[in-house]
Amino acid sequence: MGGVSQYSERTARPRAERARHVADLLRQQITDDAFPGGLLPDEGTLGRHLGASRNAVREALGLLREEGLVTRRRGVGTSVVAPKLGHGLDRLAGLAETLAGHGTVTNEVRVAETVSATAAVADRLEVEPGDDVVRIERLRRLDDQPLSLDTSYLVADVGRRVLDADLVHRDVFAVIEEVTGGRLGRAEVAVHAVNADAGTARLLDVPAGAAVFAIERSTFLPGGRVVDVESLRIRADRLTLRATLHRGPAAG
Amino acid sequence: MGGVSQYSERTARPRAERARHVADLLRQQITDDAFPGGLLPDEGTLGRHLGASRNAVREALGLLREEGLVTRRRGVGTSVVAPKLGHGLDRLAGLAETLAGHGTVTNEVRVAETVSATAAVADRLEVEPGDDVVRIERLRRLDDQPLSLDTSYLVADVGRRVLDADLVHRDVFAVIEEVTGGRLGRAEVAVHAVNADAGTARLLDVPAGAAVFAIERSTFLPGGRVVDVESLRIRADRLTLRATLHRGPAAG
Repeated sequence: MGGVSQYSERTARPRAERARHVADLLRQQITDDAFPGGLLPDEGTLGRHLGASRNAVREALGLLREEGLVTRRRGVGTSVVAPKLGHGLDRLAGLAETLAGHGTVTNEVRVAETVSATAAVADRLEVEPGDDVVRIERLRRLDDQPLSLDTSYLVADVGRRVLDADLVHRDVFAVIEEVTGGRLGRAEVAVHAVNADAGTARLLDVPAGAAVFAIERSTFLPGGRVVDVESLRIRADRLTLRATLHRGPAAG
Repeated sequence: MGGVSQYSERTARPRAERARHVADLLRQQITDDAFPGGLLPDEGTLGRHLGASRNAVREALGLLREEGLVTRRRGVGTSVVAPKLGHGLDRLAGLAETLAGHGTVTNEVRVAETVSATAAVADRLEVEPGDDVVRIERLRRLDDQPLSLDTSYLVADVGRRVLDADLVHRDVFAVIEEVTGGRLGRAEVAVHAVNADAGTARLLDVPAGAAVFAIERSTFLPGGRVVDVESLRIRADRLTLRATLHRGPAAG
C-alpha cells in the first residue's frame, strides 16, 4: 500500500510528453505495417484512435517526420516513407537472406583487399599483428536505397577465397559457408546507437547526425574459431531490430 | 575469379573514413572495458596499436567525444566517461536485474495510475477500448545517472496490484511475477534508434538529438496472454545491447 500516494500526480502532462507517447504508438503501428497503402488517417481520426488532441498528433507526426518515417504533403496528408524492415536478432542471418522477399540487395564493394592486421584487428580475429587478413567494405542497398555500410575483417585462409566470390550480390555469411563447406556457428553482437558522422551520413543518404545503428559482430565457426569481425552502420529509419526473448527459469 | 579487379581500389582513403574505422575499433575496446582505470593511451600509442595516423586517431576521439563516450582534458589525456553497460538481448530481464552488481537502480515514478485504454493501447494489450488499464512511467537511474525512460501499460487485474508495489526500487517484471505467482513467458521486442526529442533529452540528461534506443516491448505470461506493453527510451552512450546469435540449420 501507500504506493501511489507518494508519487507526484501530473494531470496536465506537458505537450511534448504527450507528443512523444503518440509518436511511440504511431511508430509501432508503422513498424507493424498497420496503415494500408502507407497513408495515415487525418489528424482528427488519429487523435480519436490514440486518445490524443490534434495538437499532440501534429507534434508527434513532426517527430516522426524528423526520424524520416513519414512525409507530410498538403492536400495529400501523411504517408509512410517506406515500411520499416525487421532484422531478426534471434538467429544469425545475413542482410540479403533476411530481406529476401522485400526487394533486391546489391552491394557496392568499396574495399576488397588483403592487408596486414593492426594490433586491434589482430586481437579481435585472434591472429598475430602483421598477419594477413582480408578487409571488405560494402555499401549495401535494398532496391537502390542505401541500408547499411559494412566493414568486415576475415581470417586470411577463408577471406582470400571470399574475395573470389560474387560480393556484389551475396551475403558474406553465405560465401563463408560455401568456402568452409559447413554452416557458421554463432555470433557475438553488440548493438550501439550513434549519431551518423558526416561521411557515413552521406553514404547512407541520411542527414548528418541522424541516429543509426552501429553493430559490432564477431562470427565463429562451429568449432569456436573466429572467422569474421564486422562493424556495421545500419539506417535506423529503415530497419528495426527484432527479437523474441524468453524469460527462462529464475537464476540461483 | 575476376572478383577484385572490378572494384575501385582506394589507396588514399578519405580521412573521415579512416577516423570512423578507428572510432569503431576504440568503441569496441571501450565497450569491452579494455582500458584499465578508464584512461586511454596517448594518440601516438593508440595510432600504433590501431595502425592509424595521429590525425585519424585525434579525429576518431573527437567522434567518440561527441557520442559522450570519452572526455579529453589537456594535461590528463582521454578518459572513458563511464564503462558502457551491456543489456542482454538473449533473455528477458529487467534493468535492475541486468545491472545487479554495477550499481543501484532507482526509479523516479512520474506516472502510476489507472486510465481508460485508447484504441491504440487496447489493440496492443488485447483489451477493449475504454477498458481500465494501468499506466506507469518511470525515469530509471543507475547511481543517480538517468539511463532509461520507461512507459508501461499493464492489463488492469495485474496492473492494479503492481501499483501497490515498491516501484521506486524494483523491476516491473519482478513485481508482475510476484503478483501472478509465476515466471513471465516471453517478450516481443522491436529496437529502434532515434534522435532524442528535447523533452526526452532533458530527462535523460543528453544533448537534444543524441542517438538513443527506442524499444517497444510486449510481454506475455507463459499461457500467451499479453500482460505489459512498454515503450523504453534508453541512453545509448551508457548502454549497449548484446546478444549471442546462433546460425542454426539451413532453411528449406
